Amino acid sequence: MTTEMHPSRWGNPAETTALPESTRGLVELALGVRETPAVEEVSMPPVGLADDVLAELRALLGDDHVLTDDEHRRLRTRGKSTPDLLRARSGDLTDAPDVVARPGTHDDVVALIALAVRHHIAIVPFGGGTSVTGGLVARREGYAGVVSVDLIRMKALREVDKESMTVVLEPGLRGPEAEELLAAEGLMLGHFPQSFEFASIGGFAATRSSGQSSAGYGRFDAMVMGLTLATPQGTLEVGSSPANAAGPDLRQLVLGSEGAFGIITSVRVRVKKLPVEKVYEAWNFPSFTAGADAMRHLAQNGLMPTVLRLSDENETALNLASHSDVGGESTGGCLMIVGHEGASVAARQALVGAALEELGGTPLGEDRGAAWAEGRFHAPYLRDSLLDVGVLVETLETATFWSNRDRLYKAVTSALTEALGEKTLVLCHISHVYETGCSLYFTVAAPQADAPLEQWLAAKAKASQAMVDAGATITHHHAVGTDHKPWLAQEIGEVGVRILRAVKADLDPTDVLNPGVLIP
Amino acid sequence: MTTEMHPSRWGNPAETTALPESTRGLVELALGVRETPAVEEVSMPPVGLADDVLAELRALLGDDHVLTDDEHRRLRTRGKSTPDLLRARSGDLTDAPDVVARPGTHDDVVALIALAVRHHIAIVPFGGGTSVTGGLVARREGYAGVVSVDLIRMKALREVDKESMTVVLEPGLRGPEAEELLAAEGLMLGHFPQSFEFASIGGFAATRSSGQSSAGYGRFDAMVMGLTLATPQGTLEVGSSPANAAGPDLRQLVLGSEGAFGIITSVRVRVKKLPVEKVYEAWNFPSFTAGADAMRHLAQNGLMPTVLRLSDENETALNLASHSDVGGESTGGCLMIVGHEGASVAARQALVGAALEELGGTPLGEDRGAAWAEGRFHAPYLRDSLLDVGVLVETLETATFWSNRDRLYKAVTSALTEALGEKTLVLCHISHVYETGCSLYFTVAAPQADAPLEQWLAAKAKASQAMVDAGATITHHHAVGTDHKPWLAQEIGEVGVRILRAVKADLDPTDVLNPGVLIP
Repeated sequence: MTTEMHPSRWGNPAETTALPESTRGLVELALGVRETPAVEEVSMPPVGLADDVLAELRALLGDDHVLTDDEHRRLRTRGKSTPDLLRARSGDLTDAPDVVARPGTHDDVVALIALAVRHHIAIVPFGGGTSVTGGLVARREGYAGVVSVDLIRMKALREVDKESMTVVLEPGLRGPEAEELLAAEGLMLGHFPQSFEFASIGGFAATRSSGQSSAGYGRFDAMVMGLTLATPQGTLEVGSSPANAAGPDLRQLVLGSEGAFGIITSVRVRVKKLPVEKVYEAWNFPSFTAGADAMRHLAQNGLMPTVLRLSDENETALNLASHSDVGGESTGGCLMIVGHEGASVAARQALVGAALEELGGTPLGEDRGAAWAEGRFHAPYLRDSLLDVGVLVETLETATFWSNRDRLYKAVTSALTEALGEKTLVLCHISHVYETGCSLYFTVAAPQADAPLEQWLAAKAKASQAMVDAGATITHHHAVGTDHKPWLAQEIGEVGVRILRAVKADLDPTDVLNPGVLIP
Repeated sequence: MTTEMHPSRWGNPAETTALPESTRGLVELALGVRETPAVEEVSMPPVGLADDVLAELRALLGDDHVLTDDEHRRLRTRGKSTPDLLRARSGDLTDAPDVVARPGTHDDVVALIALAVRHHIAIVPFGGGTSVTGGLVARREGYAGVVSVDLIRMKALREVDKESMTVVLEPGLRGPEAEELLAAEGLMLGHFPQSFEFASIGGFAATRSSGQSSAGYGRFDAMVMGLTLATPQGTLEVGSSPANAAGPDLRQLVLGSEGAFGIITSVRVRVKKLPVEKVYEAWNFPSFTAGADAMRHLAQNGLMPTVLRLSDENETALNLASHSDVGGESTGGCLMIVGHEGASVAARQALVGAALEELGGTPLGEDRGAAWAEGRFHAPYLRDSLLDVGVLVETLETATFWSNRDRLYKAVTSALTEALGEKTLVLCHISHVYETGCSLYFTVAAPQADAPLEQWLAAKAKASQAMVDAGATITHHHAVGTDHKPWLAQEIGEVGVRILRAVKADLDPTDVLNPGVLIP
C-alpha cells in the first residue's frame, strides 16, 4: 500500500473508483450537479529557503533526507479537508513547504528545531498528512521558509513490556505499520480512525484522535501513558505511572497540541492482546432518537461493545455507512453497527443483544455488520468520486452531553441547510459514545456553486457557530488546525486562550512550531 | 458529625479511642516506645492583616464571614500530615492564617481574588483541611497577610442532568454531604478516599484525588466533565463535552493545580445510579507478588471489581487493614479485599471469584470484607492513638507500571528502614489498580526520636528520592503541596517545571494564589 497521497485526493489512486452509474443517477437526481474535473497541471512555487540554510539542513540530516523536488513537496502540501482538495484541484499549491526534512532520531528533531529557531523557519510536523482542519498549513509570512518535518524515518517499536501491557512507539509509524509490529508480539493498539491506513502515531497523539473502536479500546489520549516532546527549550518526558496526583497531567497538555508546543518523538501506549474473536452485527432502530437512547443505555449500564455506531434516517437511507452500496436498498429506520472483539464475545453479544431488543432494536444480522467492517476506511474515496462529478461534499463533527444531543443535531443540520440551500443532503451518525454523551458526525452534500471553496467555508462557519452556540465542542476528533481556531477561542474563552498562549510563548518564544496552528 | 478538625489530630475527637491494652503491648514490644503526650496549651500568632484590609474584606463578604478569632484560625491551620500534627502537638501554630474568609458565590471568590491581588495577600483555598502534603501552608514572607478562603458556604447541588448522568457540585461540599444530596436523587458519585468524611469536592478536584472505589467508579479526574475556575485574569469555564479534540484538555491542567492557578468554584461530574447491591469479600494470597499478579490479571482482562485492595505480608500480619483488630490473629499470606457494587453483583462476583481461585487465591468470606468496609475511614484515628504513645507513624504512596512494582516496593521499603532503623515497621498495600500498573501505599511506624519531626522529614526525603529514582511518581493520590515539590521537579523535569511556571505567571502574575504550593 502506498502511504503517499496526492494533495487533491485521498489515499491510493488505485482504490478510487468512478461512481457506479446507479449512484451517479441518484446524485444527479438529488443534486442536479455537473461534472467539474480537477485541474491536472499545476505548478509548484519555487523553493524559498536560502542555500546556506539548505546546506546546514543537509549537513544535519544528510543529503538523502533534505528534499526539495516538486514531487516530495507536493505530497506534503496541506491535508485532506475538502477545502484542501478544492484548492489543489484548482491548481493552487501555494502552501507547499520549501523543503521536506526527514529526521531519524529524537536528537535529530532537537537539532532541527534549534536550526529552525536560529533561522526563523516555520516547521510543520508531518505524519500521515490526513489533517482535515488545516493543521499542516503553517503561517509563512515573516519566516525564512517552511520546512515539513516528515517523521517517516522514525518508525520503530522501541520497547515492549508485556507485563505492564505497554509499548513505546515512534511517531512516524502509520496505523497499519504499528499494528503489524504489535501483531508480531501478539498485541494490538486498537486505534482505528477512518484515516487509519495513512495517519500516524504522532498524529494520533498530537490531535487527540479517536477511533471507530474507541468504545472498546479507548480514545488515543486514554491510551497514552507517557510521551517525549522535543521543544525549543529542551525535552519534556512525562509518564511515571498510569495515573498520579503529581500536579496537572502534563500528558494531556501535549496531547492535542498539534505541533505548536513541540514535536512528539515517542509515546508509551497501553496495548491489548490480539482479539481472539471479532463479530460485527447490524441492528435497526425505528428512529435516531430511539437508537441514541439505546446507545446511552448501553454506556450507562456497563454494556459497551467494542464498536458502536448509529446512522440517522438520512444516512441509513443513503446507505453511506457502506461505500460499496450507495443507492442500494434501504431498510428504513436507523442502522446501528455493534461490534464485539476480544474474549467472551458470545456472552457479551448475548447480553448486549438482549438489551438492544428490549430497547426497540431489530437485529439485521452479521452480514451487514461485516460489510461495514470491510468498508470502514473507504468513505474518503467516495468523496473524491463525488467531487469529480461536481458534488460539494465534506464532513464535520462535534460532541455534547446526552441531554443536548437532539438540540445540537437540529442546530447543525439547520445551519448547513440554510447555508447551502434546499437541495443539501445532511447525513449524521454517532460513532463515539460515552456515559455522559456522544459525538455527532455529519456528512454534507450539495451542488457545487461557481466558487465551491467560498461556498463551503461560509457553510462551515455557520455550522461551527451553531455547535459552539449549542454549548458543544467545535471538534470531537478532527482537532483544531487553522480552520477551527475562531470557535476554539469561543469554546475555551479568554482565560483558556491565554493559557495556551502562555505555554506557547514559553516553550516556543520565536513561534517557529507550526505557527498559526491551534493557538487562537 | 463535626467537620472541623483540631490541627493536632484527625477527625471527630469522640471517635478517637485510646489503644486497647493488647495493642499497646504489641506496639511497645515491637518498637520500645514511650508516651509523649501532646502539648495542649498553644498560643496563636496575632492577626497580621491591617485593619483597613479587614474592613474591605468585611464590606465584601459581611462581618459573619470574615473571622479572626483564635478558634477559627486554629482549625484552618495546616493539614493532616504527621509533620503537621507533630508541629501542632509541639505547640507550633505559626502557620495559622490571619483571617478565615468565607465567600458564598463564584462572584465573591472573584472579588476576593481581586482584593488579594490589590493588597498582595496570600490566599489559601480551604475545603476539608485534609491535605497531607503541606498544601495549606502558603508562603507568607513578603505578603500583607494570609487568608484562608473557606469554601464552607458553597455547598449547593446546582444542576442534576439524569439523562446525561452529570451533576454540578459546588466545591465546599464534603464527601458525605455530596453523597447525601445525590442519594436524594437516586444517584451517587462513588468517590471514597480515606479522607471522605472530611474532604471536599473542591479538594478532590484540586488534588486529583483517587478513592477506595476508583477501580469501579474511576479517579476523580476521570469523573470531572467540566469545571469553573476563578483566576486573577478572569474565569475559565471548560466542559463542552465528555471528550473532544479541541486542543489540549484544559480540565486536566486545572485538576491537580492545588489552588495555584485559581479557585475551583464548581465542577460538573459524572454520576452513577445508587448501587442496588454491595458485597465485599476477603481473599488470601500466598504472597504479595501472587496477589499483585492476580490484580493485574483482573485489570488486563476486563474483570475489574468496584473495590480491589491487597495488603502485603506485613500489613496482613499487623492487620492494619481493619483498625478495630490490630494485633488480632493473622491469617498469614496477604489479604485481598474485593468489592462489587451496582447491578449483576452476583454474576460479577462469580466471574471474578473463579479467576481469583485459579490464580491461587483462597476465599475468606464476606465477614472480613464487611469488616474492612465498616472501618475503611478510621485508620487516621489510629495514627493519633499511636502518636499519643510515642510511635512515629505516617503514610506515603506512589504508583508505577506493573513491571516496576517489585523494584519500587523494595526500594522504598529499604529507604525507610535504612533511615529509621531496624525497629521500623513498613507495611504496604495496593489500593488502586490499572491495566498498566498500580499504586503502592506504605504505612511506616518507628520509635519516635528526640526530634520526631526532623527524624520523619529525613526518612521521607530518602523514600521520596527512592520513588523518583525508580522512575515512579512522587504521589499517586496525595498531591504535591509544599512537601513533594523537589521530587515533582525531578519527575517532570525542567521543561515540565517551566510549563507550570509559565501558566502560573500568566494567570497569577503577583503570585497570590497559594504561593509556594505545587510549583517548584
